[in-house]
Amino acid sequence: MRYILYGVGAVGGVVAAALTEAGHEVLGIARGARLEALQANGLAFRSANGSRRYRLDLREAPSEIEFRPDDAILLLVKSQHTADALAALRDAGVDEQPIYCCQNGIANERTALRLFPNVHGVTVMLPAQFDALDEAVACCAPEFGVFDIGRAPSGADDDDRALAEALTPGGIRGYVDPAVMVSKYGKLILNLGNVVEAAVGRGAKTGPVAEILREEAKQVLAAAGIAWRDVGQDDPRRDLMRPAEVEGVTRSGTSSTQSLARGAGSIETDYLNGEIVLLARLHGVPAPANEAMCRLAARLVRKGSGPGGVRAAEVHAMVGLPPP
Amino acid sequence: MRYILYGVGAVGGVVAAALTEAGHEVLGIARGARLEALQANGLAFRSANGSRRYRLDLREAPSEIEFRPDDAILLLVKSQHTADALAALRDAGVDEQPIYCCQNGIANERTALRLFPNVHGVTVMLPAQFDALDEAVACCAPEFGVFDIGRAPSGADDDDRALAEALTPGGIRGYVDPAVMVSKYGKLILNLGNVVEAAVGRGAKTGPVAEILREEAKQVLAAAGIAWRDVGQDDPRRDLMRPAEVEGVTRSGTSSTQSLARGAGSIETDYLNGEIVLLARLHGVPAPANEAMCRLAARLVRKGSGPGGVRAAEVHAMVGLPPP
Repeated sequence: MRYILYGVGAVGGVVAAALTEAGHEVLGIARGARLEALQANGLAFRSANGSRRYRLDLREAPSEIEFRPDDAILLLVKSQHTADALAALRDAGVDEQPIYCCQNGIANERTALRLFPNVHGVTVMLPAQFDALDEAVACCAPEFGVFDIGRAPSGADDDDRALAEALTPGGIRGYVDPAVMVSKYGKLILNLGNVVEAAVGRGAKTGPVAEILREEAKQVLAAAGIAWRDVGQDDPRRDLMRPAEVEGVTRSGTSSTQSLARGAGSIETDYLNGEIVLLARLHGVPAPANEAMCRLAARLVRKGSGPGGVRAAEVHAMVGLPPP
Repeated sequence: MRYILYGVGAVGGVVAAALTEAGHEVLGIARGARLEALQANGLAFRSANGSRRYRLDLREAPSEIEFRPDDAILLLVKSQHTADALAALRDAGVDEQPIYCCQNGIANERTALRLFPNVHGVTVMLPAQFDALDEAVACCAPEFGVFDIGRAPSGADDDDRALAEALTPGGIRGYVDPAVMVSKYGKLILNLGNVVEAAVGRGAKTGPVAEILREEAKQVLAAAGIAWRDVGQDDPRRDLMRPAEVEGVTRSGTSSTQSLARGAGSIETDYLNGEIVLLARLHGVPAPANEAMCRLAARLVRKGSGPGGVRAAEVHAMVGLPPP
């Protein structure tokens, strides 16, 4: 298969490196300054194993690609850009090729299923970042990450097995999972603390505020009758991917923090905490803590605030906790 | 209350006229040539009762509005523009004000509930059009239309009663409906023929292809466990709104046909037939006829085809019917 990576950010960059390293045909879609830097310099891939530069075949938009029946498309843009990306893929002639939603949250699969028949979910457990525009840094070792891969809403097929096998030799351990959305809901629960880290700073992702957000979410998911499974530190596969030193790199936090630091104009909170809020409203149960975090994220984006600028006491008050 | 009409197209124009006629405070959001024409000339409202011109208070975007706690926002943009409209409303400070999704389809309520706590659905039964840029034509009499109004996902409140009462004196009969989404699913079934009319031409909306699309949809809704009620010609309230002659006006078809005629770049099929397709994929049942219509609509938009340019035999073949 040829793998089309729609989005070559931090995670997309590591995936590009892993697939290229294993000898697979890869075509990336990137834009702006990122595209220019990757075209000029190649991709500087950095990990605990050292650095290596990969030449990538890149396009600016799906309209520049002659899609083939053996293409598999990996969506690696943020959730808030999924609808536009899917429309562009359809306009460019994509139809029955498998589309892998590699983003956090669980909304992308539904958005894709409206337009395409062959949609898959991927639970991405792969801490990554980029500081320089031509860079992708994998922050864990011995594996860069672990992916659960399956069809949406459920099932698994030969394409899933092929993708899992394609990723694994390059350092991303792929698992075929016919209940991949159950895994993705587990990842969603983990991601609920991202907004707290983005607001307050490093460490807050797993503090008492995050704990309240997660407990509230579990009650909402129970009320909605939605299954999830823990893919956090109790998942034995986490032993495969431990935080590792990468020479000259300081870990910059979750994708939400990185978006805020880049002034990206939107962060993914609406598809993380906002998913819990949506389910709560649909099922008539309360979710005040996650609601407060959505309001906070919207405020930070509106004001163009960088990460870490909110006092912990303020966030504690928002979820009914005493000051830390 | 002050009514903010987000979108002053055909339906939005008739709503603006009805609310203004009844003495309510109205503020419209429009753009481009439509905004210029409405600002220059006012709104030329035409119906079986004759013509009348209304001066409207208009803005180009939510950012130009100082929102008040007593605002109610009526979303009257097409479904494919809802996400951007909602983001703009939040950026402009809207929070707990009621948001009424007045569009066809049932996806807008879910999109709005992700961002806002106070979301309502409206089943809009109101054939309307505009030929001139400063115009809105109501095509039925004695009432211009009938609206079912209630909270999403269910319930009804004082704002719903106020809106129903505000609309009725101006010629739009408002009904408070605590199960408004059940009514909206019924309207969705009626709208499945819009794409056929847009492709083939007038009359096809209720022909044998449309019948196949509707029967398929009813099976999909049954598989999904989704309730709907008939709001078509067997609904006795249809007697309130019969097609009427409006001087100098030729009826130009449904909103899908009008979009195609205007070269609007997208038509709402993804949120009509596409909703049935999405449900079918989520619940593992087939919907080949509605799938074929989504593909057809995407093709017409991509090619910039005007309405009525597809042979009936081609559409018949797409859903497995012999040539007409």
